[in-house]
Amino acid sequence: MSCRLLWRTCKRALPKHDRIRTSYSAGSRRLYSEGETTAVPRVIFSGIQPTGIPHLGNYLGAIRNWVKLQNTAAPGDTVIYCIVGYHAITLPQDPVHLETERLNMLASLLACGINPKLSLLYNQDQVPEHTELAWILNCITPVGWLSRMTTWKSKLAVARNAGSEDEIDESMLNLGLFAYPVLQAADIMIHKSTHVPVGDDQTQHLELAQDIARAFNHKYGDDLFPMPQQLSTSAKRVLSLRDPAQKMSKSAPSDKSRILITDDPAAITAKIRGAVTDSITEITYDPEGRPGVGNLISVLAACTSEEPTLDLDAIGRSYQGRRIQDLKQDVADAVIAKIDPIRKEYERIRAEPSWLRDVSEAGTVLARERASRTMLEVKRTVGLARM
Amino acid sequence: MSCRLLWRTCKRALPKHDRIRTSYSAGSRRLYSEGETTAVPRVIFSGIQPTGIPHLGNYLGAIRNWVKLQNTAAPGDTVIYCIVGYHAITLPQDPVHLETERLNMLASLLACGINPKLSLLYNQDQVPEHTELAWILNCITPVGWLSRMTTWKSKLAVARNAGSEDEIDESMLNLGLFAYPVLQAADIMIHKSTHVPVGDDQTQHLELAQDIARAFNHKYGDDLFPMPQQLSTSAKRVLSLRDPAQKMSKSAPSDKSRILITDDPAAITAKIRGAVTDSITEITYDPEGRPGVGNLISVLAACTSEEPTLDLDAIGRSYQGRRIQDLKQDVADAVIAKIDPIRKEYERIRAEPSWLRDVSEAGTVLARERASRTMLEVKRTVGLARM
Repeated sequence: MSCRLLWRTCKRALPKHDRIRTSYSAGSRRLYSEGETTAVPRVIFSGIQPTGIPHLGNYLGAIRNWVKLQNTAAPGDTVIYCIVGYHAITLPQDPVHLETERLNMLASLLACGINPKLSLLYNQDQVPEHTELAWILNCITPVGWLSRMTTWKSKLAVARNAGSEDEIDESMLNLGLFAYPVLQAADIMIHKSTHVPVGDDQTQHLELAQDIARAFNHKYGDDLFPMPQQLSTSAKRVLSLRDPAQKMSKSAPSDKSRILITDDPAAITAKIRGAVTDSITEITYDPEGRPGVGNLISVLAACTSEEPTLDLDAIGRSYQGRRIQDLKQDVADAVIAKIDPIRKEYERIRAEPSWLRDVSEAGTVLARERASRTMLEVKRTVGLARM
Repeated sequence: MSCRLLWRTCKRALPKHDRIRTSYSAGSRRLYSEGETTAVPRVIFSGIQPTGIPHLGNYLGAIRNWVKLQNTAAPGDTVIYCIVGYHAITLPQDPVHLETERLNMLASLLACGINPKLSLLYNQDQVPEHTELAWILNCITPVGWLSRMTTWKSKLAVARNAGSEDEIDESMLNLGLFAYPVLQAADIMIHKSTHVPVGDDQTQHLELAQDIARAFNHKYGDDLFPMPQQLSTSAKRVLSLRDPAQKMSKSAPSDKSRILITDDPAAITAKIRGAVTDSITEITYDPEGRPGVGNLISVLAACTSEEPTLDLDAIGRSYQGRRIQDLKQDVADAVIAKIDPIRKEYERIRAEPSWLRDVSEAGTVLARERASRTMLEVKRTVGLARM
């Protein structure tokens, strides 16, 4: 099972009308405008599925940014990261494997720099209020909103490619796959989150969360929920080392296509040396025409600087007259310099399962406190308060 | 909003293939056969929506049977009745009204004879484990199973009668209406219920719960959940006093069509005197041809005896030569004799909201104990145990 970021399960580009919606919801309907965000304390929330050790793409594309948000948050801000086991089971999981992956993901996030003293870090599946709120939101969410989700459409498309027309059986897809965007909305709303750092592939789901929050506020005449804003990041899109037409992915068949945060220096070096590029000997940065070389330059830049506006062309030009092996060696060195401390920290932490359990337990307690406060308000609002 | 019994929302007859399924699941797939039920301690569960004071049909058709099951349970049996607020919100509810209705329903059940020392009586919406289990069951329930539910189909049919083809907008139905049979399955399964007293109109939903329980046991190679059996009852089908072609219902426009358990003797007498019958002066029991008179005889029998095999023809014949007014007076007297003690008890109990809250609170604690035991097992089984 792949290490799917919660917000990164949608592999298809959004259709054009969704892009239009994006700019719409980024406009007048936002409760917190760009200008206000510095004044209002933020509640930053994101989630990740416990389905595999994070790879370099997960780290550079999301987790590193989570750490940065944690470390640069203003004093009044709240930063919450959630390991979303209830999303993992929308696809088949081996139970024993899933138990291990949950510990692995917790250790991975800690090793990457999520600090439980600065961020609220917890397991969604230990906080039943997520599913309670999801049920209440189910009752105000039209099924049509969910049928339009491109993730659902892509699952249907997969079902439709089942070989022959007769094999089409979309009705066998489970309800969890259809309903999980509402659980995502509940994940966000249970903390009254204002900012959600996710990739563009999750814009549609975040817009659904906004629509659901708006529907709740409208129905009950109450501004209980803020509109969660997408926190766009300068996240790097890291490509597969075996097929640079694809993103780096945990589900790709070849281990050599990805670098895990637990890979040792020898493995990293071997994988980067074996990275598929092209037959042109000169090095240039041309991400469209030469995605393999472009990916290496991009990874090199991302591992040597967090500055999002680095001139990748200039890095390419700096290799004029040098061989691809030279570039690969530099990339390997840079990745090792970035990843090896994380690997060592991971191994140290992973060897202390009782401490990991304490971290999880403490996060659960804090998260339930927050979540049950929201649920008290929600239940009073809908007429289901404690009697 | 009507006092909908949880299990009584399906108003359409089951199609033929569902009837065939019924006899199938009542056969070899049952975990507890008729012969075994006396040997194995039973867990009896049923639910009712807090959407209005129960009427005579609810009482004679369901609640009286609940009381009987409670009072005749074997020492090892567990009897659980649940006020299902989370089902009520699948239709629009006024929050203030819903709060009141929840207290009213609790008071009604107590007044009818549910004894919190003998039965576990609680509010579903105070036990988040219901929604947690529902989410896990969502992930093993194909959407096709839900699309086939006749309740969903009837909601779609209502949407399709929207005036013109262009107005059809089934996509505006909320996800709760589509997904609630899974929450019903969770309601049953969270207590590992073995027996569910519900009417025939809920057979399809109970079969779905069996299918889901079976799917879970099969997927995880574990017999965690027993197959819940339908406990068929000798429940009376009480008809509307204004339109004996319809069942007595809380949602019918005329108050005179139904007798509430809170109606005083004068109201009961007036409603029964005004009951629509027919123009034939002689009294005979002919439920098909003379549903109005038949309904009166049936109510008379139900209020004077709990014996299910009473000879209604004989009762009809006993009125030979007498007037319909005589029958109506006897019916009114019998209903008053049955209902008036309940009304008085209701008024006594309803005047003690703090005691009602104590009862609800105590039920919540006990229900959560049971429910969290089941969830511990479920989470261990699926790989989402406490870390």
